[in-house]
Amino acid sequence: MIKVIQIGLGPLGQKIGRFIAERDTVKTVAAVDKNPNYIGKDFGDLCSGMVSNITIKETVEEAIKEEKPDVAILSTVSDMERIAQQIEEILQYNIPIVSTCEELSYPWDTHPSIASRIDKIAKEKNMAVVGTGVNPGFLMDALPSFLTSVCQKVDYIEINRFQDASFRRIPFQKKIGAGLSLDSFEDKKSAGTLRHVGLTESMQLIANRMGWKLSKTEDIIEPVVAGEPVVTKNVEIEEGAALGVMQTGKGYVGEELKVLLKFKAAIGVSESFDEVIIKGEPNINSKISGGVNGDIATCAIVINALPQILRSTPGLKTMADIPLVSCFS
Amino acid sequence: MIKVIQIGLGPLGQKIGRFIAERDTVKTVAAVDKNPNYIGKDFGDLCSGMVSNITIKETVEEAIKEEKPDVAILSTVSDMERIAQQIEEILQYNIPIVSTCEELSYPWDTHPSIASRIDKIAKEKNMAVVGTGVNPGFLMDALPSFLTSVCQKVDYIEINRFQDASFRRIPFQKKIGAGLSLDSFEDKKSAGTLRHVGLTESMQLIANRMGWKLSKTEDIIEPVVAGEPVVTKNVEIEEGAALGVMQTGKGYVGEELKVLLKFKAAIGVSESFDEVIIKGEPNINSKISGGVNGDIATCAIVINALPQILRSTPGLKTMADIPLVSCFS
Repeated sequence: MIKVIQIGLGPLGQKIGRFIAERDTVKTVAAVDKNPNYIGKDFGDLCSGMVSNITIKETVEEAIKEEKPDVAILSTVSDMERIAQQIEEILQYNIPIVSTCEELSYPWDTHPSIASRIDKIAKEKNMAVVGTGVNPGFLMDALPSFLTSVCQKVDYIEINRFQDASFRRIPFQKKIGAGLSLDSFEDKKSAGTLRHVGLTESMQLIANRMGWKLSKTEDIIEPVVAGEPVVTKNVEIEEGAALGVMQTGKGYVGEELKVLLKFKAAIGVSESFDEVIIKGEPNINSKISGGVNGDIATCAIVINALPQILRSTPGLKTMADIPLVSCFS
Repeated sequence: MIKVIQIGLGPLGQKIGRFIAERDTVKTVAAVDKNPNYIGKDFGDLCSGMVSNITIKETVEEAIKEEKPDVAILSTVSDMERIAQQIEEILQYNIPIVSTCEELSYPWDTHPSIASRIDKIAKEKNMAVVGTGVNPGFLMDALPSFLTSVCQKVDYIEINRFQDASFRRIPFQKKIGAGLSLDSFEDKKSAGTLRHVGLTESMQLIANRMGWKLSKTEDIIEPVVAGEPVVTKNVEIEEGAALGVMQTGKGYVGEELKVLLKFKAAIGVSESFDEVIIKGEPNINSKISGGVNGDIATCAIVINALPQILRSTPGLKTMADIPLVSCFS
């Protein structure tokens, strides 16, 4: 039985809590959030009425007084600046960490000094830390890297995550900008709320594994534009408005494009899938039909990484450094 | 630069030698084979004329006199009984091992006492040992296990490796029994020369990862029978004769089929592919179109595992225990 402290109890942390409650081999024993509306409440009540007998605390110190957890799940923020301080605090209590922080999935090129600092502290404490999730953490970095293990040579890697949003919930359709005029789409893009965090980290992880030193990376967000009016159950979209978003990551060695990531989520995408195309010896073309549901997958992989972070050598790790993660029950 | 001693210089060992020679970050520094026709010969000459400056020796002791290798590639036999002695000999020289031995890929259920003995010696020597290859070692065990990392729950795993042999070389067509009468097919099956080694090991690795205790496993070899006469460039097959082989692995928990592996190699298979079907939450359906060329892939993954065996904790490992393997250059 793996005993977990959950830190960060937003929608993702709550779903992780429910997923943990469904399993026999892992248990949430402490819960922490800074939200004053949560502190003092029952964690089970917050996670839609399951039984937990855990009172949500404001700090890790308070939360671990009764029972010492084996590992922390940290699902608070996406950026390295803010996650670093939280990680350092948790490590002071000698607790290894699995985090959903996107930038933590491969921070060695984007935030080298913060990464080195976390790595140093983790090693001093003899604990491992990893950032994971469905993407970054799996579909666009760890999985394609693993697929290259049957290759003698790799020249180019392309990954396509295409999602048809036609039948998704309204909040998801709103999130991807479906129905917005192109001006409103640009406003939302400028505000940073359309951005999927992690394309650069995924490219850097792949490049690191392949022995490529990327000279340039690009992360481009564009609207998918309606060529004609589209009417779905939830939304009516005018011709020329946004059907959704296409985010493209490009990684170059010199002038040569070596990594191409395309993440498209829009109404009317003809097929949902996750695809890896490797050009090399041999070529590999792998496709997950229907794609991978991101919400379920991120919660699952964070839990599934727990036994492996406990078996890992100490330091700041990536999904490519720790022993192979798989579902456990 | 990783320095390798290659032990076992049959067709597979020779191809591995050529693949290593193509890379800048790994180098064969010693070569060993018991075949009297090979001993004393130049290793580069044996591997089709590449330059090596290595004389093939009969024993590891002789081969490592001039230069100490970092790691051994052991490509000799498929069975645990014979590989065990070879592994013990290599470990005496404090050399970690990556082997193509199929039964070594997951010997914990099929050969527990030999596995424990190797594990104990490897830990005493502080070295890691792993058995790998395209299959077992990747397509039917490590890859599907990794794909489950995005699942909250897994109920059933099916893996299909289908290969159209129509355009393959004559030796491959002969190997799979294409063109044989059903009587001759049975003779070849009884002689054990049709058998793909590793289905049981792959099932046990998956079961171990999923936390399933298999109560029964089956490994069934059947001919794929021609419903009508088939004529290809290399071979004419009569109606009722074998087009090739279908090998099926079934793993049960109680009466419930939990793992189903199907390995079909025959003339006239309409499509070559490698497919993983996971029933769970969520379902995952992943397919490598065109399939993975086994010869290239096995040589590549053995080489690609070298850096990770050097980073691994000591003991007898599986592909699911060592850090994620990927192509390196």
